Amino acid sequence: MQKKHNFGAGPCILAASVMQQAANAVINWNDSGLSILEVSHRSADFENVLHKTQILVRELLNVPADYSVLFLQGGASTQFAMVPMNFLHKKMKAAYLDTGYFAQKAIKEARLFGEVEIIASSQDKNYSYIPDHIYNESGVAYLHCTSNNTIEGTEIFDFPTIGIPLVCDMSSDIFSRKINVRDFDLIYAGAQKNMGPAGMTLVIAKNKFLDSVKTEVPSMMDYRIFRDNDSMYNTPPVFSIYVAMLNLLWLKDQGGVEGIEKVNIKKANILYREIDRNPLFKGTANIAHRSRMNITFKATDAETEKAFLDFAESRGLVGIKGYRTVGGFRASLYNALPLSSVEVLVDAMKQFENSRKLEQSLQLA
Amino acid sequence: MQKKHNFGAGPCILAASVMQQAANAVINWNDSGLSILEVSHRSADFENVLHKTQILVRELLNVPADYSVLFLQGGASTQFAMVPMNFLHKKMKAAYLDTGYFAQKAIKEARLFGEVEIIASSQDKNYSYIPDHIYNESGVAYLHCTSNNTIEGTEIFDFPTIGIPLVCDMSSDIFSRKINVRDFDLIYAGAQKNMGPAGMTLVIAKNKFLDSVKTEVPSMMDYRIFRDNDSMYNTPPVFSIYVAMLNLLWLKDQGGVEGIEKVNIKKANILYREIDRNPLFKGTANIAHRSRMNITFKATDAETEKAFLDFAESRGLVGIKGYRTVGGFRASLYNALPLSSVEVLVDAMKQFENSRKLEQSLQLA
Repeated sequence: MQKKHNFGAGPCILAASVMQQAANAVINWNDSGLSILEVSHRSADFENVLHKTQILVRELLNVPADYSVLFLQGGASTQFAMVPMNFLHKKMKAAYLDTGYFAQKAIKEARLFGEVEIIASSQDKNYSYIPDHIYNESGVAYLHCTSNNTIEGTEIFDFPTIGIPLVCDMSSDIFSRKINVRDFDLIYAGAQKNMGPAGMTLVIAKNKFLDSVKTEVPSMMDYRIFRDNDSMYNTPPVFSIYVAMLNLLWLKDQGGVEGIEKVNIKKANILYREIDRNPLFKGTANIAHRSRMNITFKATDAETEKAFLDFAESRGLVGIKGYRTVGGFRASLYNALPLSSVEVLVDAMKQFENSRKLEQSLQLA
Repeated sequence: MQKKHNFGAGPCILAASVMQQAANAVINWNDSGLSILEVSHRSADFENVLHKTQILVRELLNVPADYSVLFLQGGASTQFAMVPMNFLHKKMKAAYLDTGYFAQKAIKEARLFGEVEIIASSQDKNYSYIPDHIYNESGVAYLHCTSNNTIEGTEIFDFPTIGIPLVCDMSSDIFSRKINVRDFDLIYAGAQKNMGPAGMTLVIAKNKFLDSVKTEVPSMMDYRIFRDNDSMYNTPPVFSIYVAMLNLLWLKDQGGVEGIEKVNIKKANILYREIDRNPLFKGTANIAHRSRMNITFKATDAETEKAFLDFAESRGLVGIKGYRTVGGFRASLYNALPLSSVEVLVDAMKQFENSRKLEQSLQLA
């Protein structure tokens, strides 16, 4: 079978060794004679998995002791509502940085609960850059930002340092680069990029921030209930947590976040260099804000775009069609995508350019 | 390796053929060269899985055309809040039937949103029976009941037929017996019993009931958003839905719900007969309300209980320890648990009785 290079934006590629271990556990987990799909979440063996996963998150991201590591469900979309439900109330105001499609979704949910101030937006240029975000106002519940804009291909490299709590949606770049957790009061991330398969949401939150919640919210929307019940208030997504543990162990073997960040920079540089060199393509994001995870680019015209998509697909390159609001291409270079897959893509872009040149010279001849 | 008989209360046993297919798909799904864990939820192949799963739910439960079949996350515990968030508001009242631990949890969440009337409760006898539940009041938002009480081992066999919308938590007996979906306005169920692995929640709801919602709720708590986006408003729990599809295909092969119900009745009868015959054990639930899914029973004393747990475990019988509020034993006989496993348990109970008799006669001699 032709090897596939999966550039999909999420759910995304995980390491082959992780897939193999996950498949084994579905048949017979840890020689227990039981599948990971049929074990009780209250069993000592699964509690061990959950704790090991928490510890790996703490180690890999250097999470301070006064922060909690929680596993929830519902993805970032549930967090869009859960953050304001807990921290924003009538007569209060929250600040939002509007950097794209998912930031907009977060803003929409927050408006159900209180006043939202958009401190800066890059909507004027189809979210192709990160707007300046100096913010000095006090008396605001929190400032919300999106560290990486999966669809628009931009990434925040300088986070606001402010006197109010900073909340960040890190769904598509968590575990891809070093962060200073202490800069944030709450971080959330849908798992299905660099953490594991779909079905689980990671929350890292400062305990003091969680303790500041004044109103009673439903149990499953209450971060403190997840904290006080060790993410087991009800049946957690057992398999997703198990595979996340396998994947974080794999990440540790790659030299952790520091190790993978170097590879990620290299992968992104190789591809951006080709985009900038190759006359058939051009990048869509402002160079200073180019994402290392989701590389967005366009072809010179619609016909070339279609032709390259086919050309790439015939070489086993999958998942590179861009999202409809941006168009063109999006190559997602998540942690588990090997450097060699990026090289295959870059080669395909070069070969495509050469085949075009050949066609043109034949037409001229 | 010793064969394991998994009587766990959930996440629970699934058919071996389902586990095998799930494991294969984690390595290479449908010969695509990709794992089911890394495919895009927006791919045509996964959309096909989602639709097939919906169709199987409709076929197996005879869901009328004016009902929607939705896949959510967060388990029944999220539904405990989502139902009143959508349908109960200040100055309104909802009626609840209090039949156990999970009914109590549902009641607690509903009280955050409006007035709750408990129409009947069996708390006086540790929830060992289903209380009479005739109810004629009008002007109530809905009546909520729990079809099967996983912890207390009771099951409702005659649902209230009333003029107000009936909402039912069917987490632990859905797909185990025939139901008339038209008797209910909304049914919900955590998947991790008879539907699939943990991480997905099934909702079956009458469209007219969904359309009656007046207030704006967060998108991820809004049933209509799940309906209007075909359960793909955000990334769904891809693997859980895929395994649910495999499991429902397996159920269809067993003769569907009608076929499995016959086996379930047989399995429960065999075990209850032994509980009633064997002088070392006795059932905890009122005979008329005994659950076919979760069979709760006790030993004559604490020492016998401990001894039988060890005796059973040495024979590969796992997951039969009762929940702490009831004590004793709980054998869960979900769809995928083979009749032969129940026979192994019944044999163990007989052998245990004989070994006790032998001990006593040796002590007398």
